Amino acid sequence: MALVRLVEYPGAPPEVRSVYDDIMKTRGVDWINNFWKALANDPAELARVWSLVKQVMAPGALDPLVKEMIYVAVSVTNGCEYCTYSHTAAARKKGMSDAMFMELMAVVGLANQTNRLADGLRTEVDAQFRG
Amino acid sequence: MALVRLVEYPGAPPEVRSVYDDIMKTRGVDWINNFWKALANDPAELARVWSLVKQVMAPGALDPLVKEMIYVAVSVTNGCEYCTYSHTAAARKKGMSDAMFMELMAVVGLANQTNRLADGLRTEVDAQFRG
Amino acid sequence: MALVRLVEYPGAPPEVRSVYDDIMKTRGVDWINNFWKALANDPAELARVWSLVKQVMAPGALDPLVKEMIYVAVSVTNGCEYCTYSHTAAARKKGMSDAMFMELMAVVGLANQTNRLADGLRTEVDAQFRG
Amino acid sequence: MALVRLVEYPGAPPEVRSVYDDIMKTRGVDWINNFWKALANDPAELARVWSLVKQVMAPGALDPLVKEMIYVAVSVTNGCEYCTYSHTAAARKKGMSDAMFMELMAVVGLANQTNRLADGLRTEVDAQFRG
Amino acid sequence: MALVRLVEYPGAPPEVRSVYDDIMKTRGVDWINNFWKALANDPAELARVWSLVKQVMAPGALDPLVKEMIYVAVSVTNGCEYCTYSHTAAARKKGMSDAMFMELMAVVGLANQTNRLADGLRTEVDAQFRG
Amino acid sequence: MALVRLVEYPGAPPEVRSVYDDIMKTRGVDWINNFWKALANDPAELARVWSLVKQVMAPGALDPLVKEMIYVAVSVTNGCEYCTYSHTAAARKKGMSDAMFMELMAVVGLANQTNRLADGLRTEVDAQFRG
Repeated sequence: MALVRLVEYPGAPPEVRSVYDDIMKTRGVDWINNFWKALANDPAELARVWSLVKQVMAPGALDPLVKEMIYVAVSVTNGCEYCTYSHTAAARKKGMSDAMFMELMAVVGLANQTNRLADGLRTEVDAQFRG
Repeated sequence: MALVRLVEYPGAPPEVRSVYDDIMKTRGVDWINNFWKALANDPAELARVWSLVKQVMAPGALDPLVKEMIYVAVSVTNGCEYCTYSHTAAARKKGMSDAMFMELMAVVGLANQTNRLADGLRTEVDAQFRG
Repeated sequence: MALVRLVEYPGAPPEVRSVYDDIMKTRGVDWINNFWKALANDPAELARVWSLVKQVMAPGALDPLVKEMIYVAVSVTNGCEYCTYSHTAAARKKGMSDAMFMELMAVVGLANQTNRLADGLRTEVDAQFRG
Repeated sequence: MALVRLVEYPGAPPEVRSVYDDIMKTRGVDWINNFWKALANDPAELARVWSLVKQVMAPGALDPLVKEMIYVAVSVTNGCEYCTYSHTAAARKKGMSDAMFMELMAVVGLANQTNRLADGLRTEVDAQFRG
Repeated sequence: MALVRLVEYPGAPPEVRSVYDDIMKTRGVDWINNFWKALANDPAELARVWSLVKQVMAPGALDPLVKEMIYVAVSVTNGCEYCTYSHTAAARKKGMSDAMFMELMAVVGLANQTNRLADGLRTEVDAQFRG
Repeated sequence: MALVRLVEYPGAPPEVRSVYDDIMKTRGVDWINNFWKALANDPAELARVWSLVKQVMAPGALDPLVKEMIYVAVSVTNGCEYCTYSHTAAARKKGMSDAMFMELMAVVGLANQTNRLADGLRTEVDAQFRG
């Protein structure tokens, strides 16, 4: 159970409905997921975070699917259950196959391993990497 | 200063030299970075980790540059200084531009923000995401 | 299910009962939450941790509600489910409103975002901040 | 050394200067810290993040100093060096005394201890906390 | 529900069955736990990770039970639910008593507390520790 | 530079000196490391944390060296630089050889890898592990 009530579309204040409408339109879906319904308890924060997501995740120098997989990599590393489910679903919708997902996990697992080895052995950054 | 001595090529045991040679050949470089020199204090672990890196980071279902950027995303999320420097350098070598790096950081920053919001609000995973 | 059995009041050894009594008296409640019941498998650790909580969370230079919200901020950042629920409940009891909770989450989300941006861009600490 | 060049005021594009001006005016300072100079490599991200910081950290349901201390708590928990220095400096400027800082640290330390105990013992969330 | 289907023994490809057989034989069990069944969606990754686990967790300079408890300490610190359950079970099988588990948790809790205190106070590494 | 001044023995208040004396006596050393000198800005917290360290790290169900290595494992997983240096030094003093340290790192690296794989694949805890 969420720590705050979920704000459903019917009965939501106009500024919340307006963000909900934009989320559904932008994503081509007809429902709002729980994350936004919880965030809607603070309509200003809902608007800020959605605006950020919309801008940062829009096509840019990186491919949208690549960005979604980066989102999954971070969520997995943080151990965030909700985020892992929601962004894996989003990545699949954008074209991530099972093989791509498994390979993404292999990289995430490896990176976490070598991150700790580097942190544990306290290896100094090579001059060549500082550029 | 690393917590173990760095094993330099001259004087390294044959099984270490063999891994060093393969690293330099595979990456097309003529030097060994400190991570491997520290790991070489346990030649079996050096061989295992290099073998893993070589296999997991080889071209597969995902583009090598995409994999390197995922590595950066994990390293940044873990706050690993060495890894952030070394994998950013590797990603640049594989073609990551300044604009791509900045966009990668924007996604990593956003993901860390929404991960904590989802964790803090304790939003339940929507049935639609569980598939 | 917890990884150890929960030590219930009836049948608990005297040194555990004594801590349970102090927890209930200090907090003005008539029940013991699962965290302490699990910790009670090591009565010495139960006594140590409760003593620490009682001392550190007592009024001091900071307001008790502020301290409880800081506890929530840490718990959310660590992704600790139990702690997020229990300390949010404690903060609400000490006067945290819905608006305060949502604003707390906004700060926690923002801090996690900029933490990763600073870590990823590897910005050096300004001389002015080192004092 | 930062992973990107620092964008200094002289020579910065107008949209960057405009954000820099607002940062200095809002904070009543006459210099820009490295975090923003690094972020300015992506002027759109600079504007987004500054806008977020300005809005979220403005007075609201919580006291500005409380919010700054929550920022410190998160930064410490993430082990972010830059953020710990910069937000501790900001909190001191807003009135945090040495005694308040030490007490903040005591709470952060305690919360990290009990977070891991709860995670390790895998205590189930009490029905009372789920509300 | 796992994010990928679980690969059961009957119907699994030969290279997966071969790893499953080795896991059961090495561990003296007659079932395969979900982690491996999920990983089996990428047979090469299954083989790599199992090979790593088998080698790293084999008797060496450290006692097998000690290594399993270190595994638990890391899993708890990362807040990984699955790993905490599975490695605690493995440690119990190798001889960890209730008292040893509770003491392990006490150390893990303490280490997480002092880690954050050291990170928050930003204490410089003493010359004596750099060796 | 630490975020607070370091409290040196000469000139320290009696309650701080008393803890310093006990640290030096208990550890058989003639100097105080920076962590305690920073913590001494809050003499009550200094006394609490030292008391905790002294009790938790005393011989019990686990061997003192094992406990120190668990401390290192947690510190590495948290990426705490100070803690990694100080507890590795302590473990070496208690008998940890280079081979033991490298094997400890191998386990820590592996655990961090499989923790993320389990978190990413969202494998459900097997009934057998719940006991």
